[in-house]
Parts: sequence; C-alpha cells; structure tokens
Amino acid sequence: MRTFPDLEATVADPASSSADAREMSAAQSRSAVLEEQIAENPGRFRVLTGDRPTGRLHLGHYFGTLHNRVRLQKLGVEMFVLVADYQVLTDRDVADDLPWHVEELVLDYLAIGVDPHRGTIFTHSAVPALNQLMLPFLSLVSVAELSRNPTVKDEIAHSRQSAVSGLMFTYPVHQAADILFCKSNLVPVGQDQLPHLELTRTIARRFNNRYGDGTAVFPQPEALLSSAPLLLGTDGAKMSKSRGNAITLAASADETARLIRGARTDSERHITYEPATRPEVSSLVLLAALCQKRPPEEVAADIGSAGAGALKKVVIEAVNEYLAPIRSRRAELARDRAHLRRVLAEGNERARAVADVTLAEVREAMGGCR
Amino acid sequence: MRTFPDLEATVADPASSSADAREMSAAQSRSAVLEEQIAENPGRFRVLTGDRPTGRLHLGHYFGTLHNRVRLQKLGVEMFVLVADYQVLTDRDVADDLPWHVEELVLDYLAIGVDPHRGTIFTHSAVPALNQLMLPFLSLVSVAELSRNPTVKDEIAHSRQSAVSGLMFTYPVHQAADILFCKSNLVPVGQDQLPHLELTRTIARRFNNRYGDGTAVFPQPEALLSSAPLLLGTDGAKMSKSRGNAITLAASADETARLIRGARTDSERHITYEPATRPEVSSLVLLAALCQKRPPEEVAADIGSAGAGALKKVVIEAVNEYLAPIRSRRAELARDRAHLRRVLAEGNERARAVADVTLAEVREAMGGCR
Repeated sequence: MRTFPDLEATVADPASSSADAREMSAAQSRSAVLEEQIAENPGRFRVLTGDRPTGRLHLGHYFGTLHNRVRLQKLGVEMFVLVADYQVLTDRDVADDLPWHVEELVLDYLAIGVDPHRGTIFTHSAVPALNQLMLPFLSLVSVAELSRNPTVKDEIAHSRQSAVSGLMFTYPVHQAADILFCKSNLVPVGQDQLPHLELTRTIARRFNNRYGDGTAVFPQPEALLSSAPLLLGTDGAKMSKSRGNAITLAASADETARLIRGARTDSERHITYEPATRPEVSSLVLLAALCQKRPPEEVAADIGSAGAGALKKVVIEAVNEYLAPIRSRRAELARDRAHLRRVLAEGNERARAVADVTLAEVREAMGGCR
Repeated sequence: MRTFPDLEATVADPASSSADAREMSAAQSRSAVLEEQIAENPGRFRVLTGDRPTGRLHLGHYFGTLHNRVRLQKLGVEMFVLVADYQVLTDRDVADDLPWHVEELVLDYLAIGVDPHRGTIFTHSAVPALNQLMLPFLSLVSVAELSRNPTVKDEIAHSRQSAVSGLMFTYPVHQAADILFCKSNLVPVGQDQLPHLELTRTIARRFNNRYGDGTAVFPQPEALLSSAPLLLGTDGAKMSKSRGNAITLAASADETARLIRGARTDSERHITYEPATRPEVSSLVLLAALCQKRPPEEVAADIGSAGAGALKKVVIEAVNEYLAPIRSRRAELARDRAHLRRVLAEGNERARAVADVTLAEVREAMGGCR
C-alpha cells in the first residue's frame, strides 16, 4: 500500500531519496520547531494526510504514520484524512473491489482512534471541485517539472507497466489539489516526499503570485517529518501485504502469533538491538519496544541469551496486547457497515463544502470565470 | 483565436497535418455518409463544438465553422457549444479580462443564430463533474501517447514559452472530457484535428472495454469534416485578430469598408478566381461569393477587368449586406448584458445536470467509488 504521502518508500529504499543531507537536516530542524508550535497552538494547523485504498493497514503503516496522525488529532490539529481512490486506477486487482477496500480503510482509521467528528475522512473522487483544481494547477507547472519530480521518476522506474499513464505523470498535481483544496498548511511526510511537497508549495506560491492580487489564496504547506521507525516484514524484507509478511491491524491474535513465530531471525543466540548488522532480530525487538513503549535496547537486554524463541514470545505478547483494544474496536465497528458508509458520506459532504468554497475563491481570484 | 477543435490551424498550415491522404479521404467519405444520416435523422446526433474565448469572432471563424454549427442546429442536431475558458490560461492578456471575453463570445453565438433554447452554451470551468472526468481519462492514456499527439506537438512548436505547461500537455484529455461528458457522437473538425479526435475515441473505447461490462458507457464520436474555405486576412496572411487583418462580426460597416479598401491585392487588373496563384485577390472574390451565395468564378467574371477597386466595392457591399442582420441582432443583444449572463447561467446549469449524470454512470461502471 502506498501511503499518502508515501512514507513506506522512505523506509524501504533510502537510496531513492533525493533530498540531500542539508535539505534533510533543515527540514528536521523546521519540523522540531513545528512540533513546538503545534503543542502551543494546535488550532493554527490543518493537516492533510491519507492512503491509497489498496489493502488492510499493517503495523508498518501503524507505527510509520497512523499513530502519528492520531497523536496530532489528539493534540487538537484539524485532520483531513484522504482515501485516495483515484490513485489506485493503475492497480487492476484493487479497482475491481474498490468499495470494499475503501470501507476497510475507513474501518482501520476508526479502529486506531481517528475521530471522524473532529476530522474529515473522505474520498477524493467524491469531491468534483477538488478535482477541478487540477486544471488551473496544471497550467502552473511545466512538463519538464513533472518529468523531474523524483517520486514520479521513482514510480516510473518501479512500475511494471512499460507505459506510464497520464494519471501517474500528473499525480503530484492531483496531490497538490488534495492538499490545497482544504488549505492544509501541514503535511506529515517521509524524507523522499520532500521534493514532492515542494511542488505543492510551488503551485501555491505561483497561484498566489499570479492571481492573488496581494493576498494569499493558498498557504504554502509545510512538511512535518516523522521519524518513522524501520519495521521489516516477517521475512526480513519490506513489510507489505502482497508479500504475506505483514501483520495487519485486523489479523487475529493466533494469526499474529503464527506470523511472528515464522519470522526470520539469525543464528546468534544472544539478542541485541543492532539494526545495521542484525536487521531481522532488531526489527522484532523494535516491534516489541514500540508496543511496550520502552527503549529497544532495554527489551533486548531483558531477553539476553534466551534466544529467538523467547524474543518471539515477547513480541507476540506485546503486539497482541497492544492491538487488542484496536482489534476489538475494529470487530465491533465491522458489524455495522452502514455506519462506515455514513462516516464516509458525512466526510465527503464536509469535504465538498470546503472544496466548493475554495473553488469559488479560486474562480474569483482568476477573474470570476473559472 | 483557437477554435475548438482548432479549425483555423487547418487553414493556416496544411503542412502540419498528420492525417495522411488515405485517412483524409476515408474521413471525407465517412463525413458524406454522416451528412446523409443527419438529413435523415438529426435527432440521432449530439454535437460538441466551441471556441476558446480569446477575442471577437471574425469572418474566418464564421465561414470556417460557425456557419456550419447554425446549419447543423437548424437541421435538428442537438448542440453543446463550449466556451473553453480553461484553455486560455496560457494567454495572460486574455485571462485578465476573461469574463468580458466570455460574454462577447456568447454574444457572437447568439448574433449568428445559435439558439440557446435548442442547444447548450456553457463554460467548462462551471462544470466540475466534467473536469473530474480528467482523472479516470488520464489513467487510460500514456505519457508516450500524449507526447505523440500532433496537436500538442504543434502547440509546443508554435508556443513562445520555452516550457510547455501541464495543462497544454494534457489538453487532449481535457478535450476528451469536454466531448464525452455530454456523450457527443459527432464533432465538426478540420483535417489536422483528426488524430486529436482519435485520442477521444481511444479513451471512449478503452473506458468501455475496461469498465463497460459489455455495455458502452461512451459513444466513439465521429469526425464531421467541414470543407472550410480558405479566407485570408486583409494583409494576405492568416486572418487573426491579433494581426489586425480580420473583419470581426462586430465591426461597423465603415470599419469593414476601411479594412477591405486597405486589403492587399496584386498588380493584375483582370480579376480571376485562382487561389493557388492569386491568393489575395481570390480570397476577396471568395468572401464576396460566400456572402452572395454564388460561385466565386461567377463573381470574378462579373468584375472582369474592372480591377481591384471594383472588386473591393463588391466585397464591401456583399459583406456589409450579409452581416447587417447579424450586426443589428448583436447590437440589440449587447444592450442587455444580464441576458447574456442568464443564457450562460442556464447553459451551465444544463451542462452540470448532464455531467452529473455521466459522472454517476462512470462511477457506477468503475465500481461505485468514483
């Protein structure tokens, strides 16, 4: 599942990052300042975040990004959570059963604690005025800029299809529409998404300069870098539903135990936390540590030379205990599909109202005719 | 002014055509058959046509395409007439005064006899559901296909800006949305627009194949080739408002006389109709002939060796007589700007209703979520 912005790519492929070390460091300092401002005055911020509805959310997503969203919302930041259903049009297998995938995603959101009354969960396909922003925004970027965008380059390189679709090529412009329609000023991102968000900022700036007449129609949203921990799948590769190595939020306790028991480790009996040299064992240690809210070194030291079997027992217990309330809420919510659809319908309604106001402002700024 | 589809380009630059002779001949035969079918059962056809609102319409537009639209509408074909306001975003000077240009275009349409009660005059910026079709349609074409499109290539070659915008690059997909949102099955085009319309047909076909489940959501619109006569401006170059060589529909009789009196001719006193060797004189002869509904050879023979002065007198009289009722209607309509805005508002309302139905069908076909 590609999150939105794509946080997993950071985790999986640091080499694809194009933000150089200096930019990265500047973004990190800025994010620290932003965190302080959020703590001080959360009402100043509106976050746009979301996911492509391509499958159930797993622990990689959870500790990578979902947890952070709930944290921000609890701090009082206004959240727009996007189910990016147009951006799965290239995945045939998903597109066939999209309504199901959309509902499952909403279910996961509610289960982890996203509050639909204090935020807006919506699908962009249900908001025509948002999509219309594509047109003026496309006029503000060049084909050369679209070709240079590292995320698009990356998508092109990793895509199995030989031909890149127009939708994938213009994806960053559509994402700018997603972010700017609700005038989001804060976007939680992974490192490789920095240049991506930069295009949204460029579009906002150019629109304001060209049509703003002295006033800023759009904010230039800032990146909130999250320090996503590196969680591997049970086979030591990137955690991904399609590889069957992912522990989903919806999995049962037994399934979770089975997956973790089968997880890859190494031949060293003594358990340590050394991500660089012992990635598989360290990822298991980290998972337990995140669930127990303890430092991973401490978790490893507690197990010591009890070996991988003991480690797995600890991890199984920690994960199942941590997920128990989420899973029970999920099971309860899953019994009422009509409620899920209602939550989404209400979110779409709110998003449409916001988008209509923004589009009216855009038309006014552009001369009353668009 | 770029018409929609761009008929002027045909007239101005035959070398840029990419439809080869065989394709062209096939399209001509097909158009003849279509004309018979229109005469027999006009209710079967829905036409999408229109213009970019970049200036007042002139005689080049009139005899090139506008006249044909009124003819089709009078035959009973349903017309959607698009004021393509998003497609002027690259023309800064126009964008600044767009509402005015849009109203002037509506005024020209009404003056020449487009009946807003039997057709729909609308701006695409006012129809979000139309613009949303960009998203699924973009997923059905590749960047390679967009790059190959001759009209885009041509635009890129002729554009003064070094960087081509994303809007220009995706223009044919937006045009597909314009044509298909109202399920138009007939599009009057010039020769160089054949490959352009082909992309719309491709998108319709791919959508039906991929999502149609046996039924065709979209028609594959057919090209109705018009035999646009070659009318030059008064300086012998392409008729264009920005060159000051165009006789606009809105010009006064005096202005028209002044322009035609200043028109370029040649040193040969005897007037003939030989477009290949005497383009300037022949264009004047043709203009008189079109206005008088006579063969140009006959007009030329009548003048004979009376010379260019006599020719111009004939042309001035013919044009002013032909345009008199159009101009008087235009002057009358121009007194009531609120009426123009009402016509457009009603057209936009109708277009929105049609687009909403189509988008709902598209979402249903795609799995209920878009």
